[in-house]
Amino acid sequence: MKIKIRVPSTTANLGPGFDVFGAALSLYNEFEVEYVPNARKTSFILTGEGKKLLPRGVENLVWQSMLKTFKVLGEDKYNLENLNIRINLGIPLNGGLGSSASAIVGGIALANVLCGKELDKSKSQIADLAIKIEGHPDNVVPAVFGGLCTCSDGDGDHGTVLHLPIPKLKAVLCVPSFELRTKHSRQILPKSIALKDVVFNISRVAMLTVAFCRGDYSLLKQGMQDKVHQLYRGKVIPAMNEVFETAISAGAYGAFLSGSGPALAAFCNGKDALNVQKAMVERWKKESILVKSHVLDFDTKGVLEI
Amino acid sequence: MKIKIRVPSTTANLGPGFDVFGAALSLYNEFEVEYVPNARKTSFILTGEGKKLLPRGVENLVWQSMLKTFKVLGEDKYNLENLNIRINLGIPLNGGLGSSASAIVGGIALANVLCGKELDKSKSQIADLAIKIEGHPDNVVPAVFGGLCTCSDGDGDHGTVLHLPIPKLKAVLCVPSFELRTKHSRQILPKSIALKDVVFNISRVAMLTVAFCRGDYSLLKQGMQDKVHQLYRGKVIPAMNEVFETAISAGAYGAFLSGSGPALAAFCNGKDALNVQKAMVERWKKESILVKSHVLDFDTKGVLEI
Repeated sequence: MKIKIRVPSTTANLGPGFDVFGAALSLYNEFEVEYVPNARKTSFILTGEGKKLLPRGVENLVWQSMLKTFKVLGEDKYNLENLNIRINLGIPLNGGLGSSASAIVGGIALANVLCGKELDKSKSQIADLAIKIEGHPDNVVPAVFGGLCTCSDGDGDHGTVLHLPIPKLKAVLCVPSFELRTKHSRQILPKSIALKDVVFNISRVAMLTVAFCRGDYSLLKQGMQDKVHQLYRGKVIPAMNEVFETAISAGAYGAFLSGSGPALAAFCNGKDALNVQKAMVERWKKESILVKSHVLDFDTKGVLEI
Repeated sequence: MKIKIRVPSTTANLGPGFDVFGAALSLYNEFEVEYVPNARKTSFILTGEGKKLLPRGVENLVWQSMLKTFKVLGEDKYNLENLNIRINLGIPLNGGLGSSASAIVGGIALANVLCGKELDKSKSQIADLAIKIEGHPDNVVPAVFGGLCTCSDGDGDHGTVLHLPIPKLKAVLCVPSFELRTKHSRQILPKSIALKDVVFNISRVAMLTVAFCRGDYSLLKQGMQDKVHQLYRGKVIPAMNEVFETAISAGAYGAFLSGSGPALAAFCNGKDALNVQKAMVERWKKESILVKSHVLDFDTKGVLEI
């Protein structure tokens, strides 16, 4: 039995929607597993971007997530001695595009299929388990369901997930060559936020939500403003606000820090995407920052057996 | 020339939308002015609820707002010697139903009509002037425009006002016999909010906005939860959360502290309104709190010459 799973990349926060908004994008990791009973030798193969940076074997997040799923499902038949695992990395590591959310969701989905798909078909249990492993819902939820979502904290579960209309837009993602680990990027954040900045974000979250509900993207420029996390993370990302402004000048509706960064993102019409991409890349080049950039669609499927 | 203006009451915040969300309701103050050149004696008459509590004359907020408008419009013809003013109070004072916003908007509108309606017809200038006087936009904006709005801070102007669909619901308002002055109720609030509570509110604001945009009122129960101001103001409002729970058990979709309180509000279907009203009043009666309660519609007109 050979199982193949595809999981989309995700961009989270979307400006003011810290830990709440997330969207799935058309850049994918693929995960493959094959059960080989009584094998003398199995393999754990990584291909694609960043393959050398990840552990092969017990410490790998995909395997860790598979193990946790086996435990939840009460299955102890599988181990690294009887499984061939192959991971093809399409999502850059530590960029702010949900690479760890993808690994977690991929691992859970592989294990679930191996065990006969015991988790519910609505994918809620996959989401719940993934949130438990990841610690916050805004990447794993769109990675599971696809599309554009908001999440609320449940009490140890996926809370209320709202699926917003999928924007008829392209997402331009610029991933710089320097790294910013999520853990570090979270440590930069203050423990509390000034009340006036909270009011600022409340008004922008309302605007962002209306923009997507109505498809009125002219609201995104203001509706993607943030004073809860970008204010702080921006200090370790050179020229962040300048790249945002450049993107908007080149035709983007709005721009924001993708997840915990360092990738920067902009939403725009298809006809403007190449201009926006070029403008963002060139602005960062002025800071001597090399960038891998992508023009992406919104993924509508989420985690998928392929 | 006799001029008569009607201004609706307003309920602000709607739970998580602190200083951003506001709605106009069908309880009104009426303001009348008559210009009597060369009068020997003019009058400043207050009628209605709370009439004894308000100053008659120069210190009255309506008059103060008229004066500021005259100044903006460069008009110095009018004074308390040549104007008869009559105010009929339908909105309870210091209850959390926007009585001061109503006074400010009423005063500006009276002065504007007296001066030949020099402020723009879209009412934006009335809103800007009113925000300057009141200091925050969430009551004055719906008092001016009617309906259900979100406001963002402009830089000394009305910022971006979004008009959301008017809910097909009734608003039950319970105004307790004790007072809670807005100024004091603001002082209770902390200067900063824990990041996890900010995330809580961001998710609820998204949910509240989706609820109104889609008319999916089942989202209001969770979407009206708040940890930015009700958590603190609730400490000086006996049994606030219990009244909310009672309202929801009696059929309300959601319940919240109206503005800075102490009035509590619930949104529900028309058929459930009397039940919800009764339940809220009786729950507060248990705390020996007497209540004036109202079942209101959403006002769609805002400030109006009648």
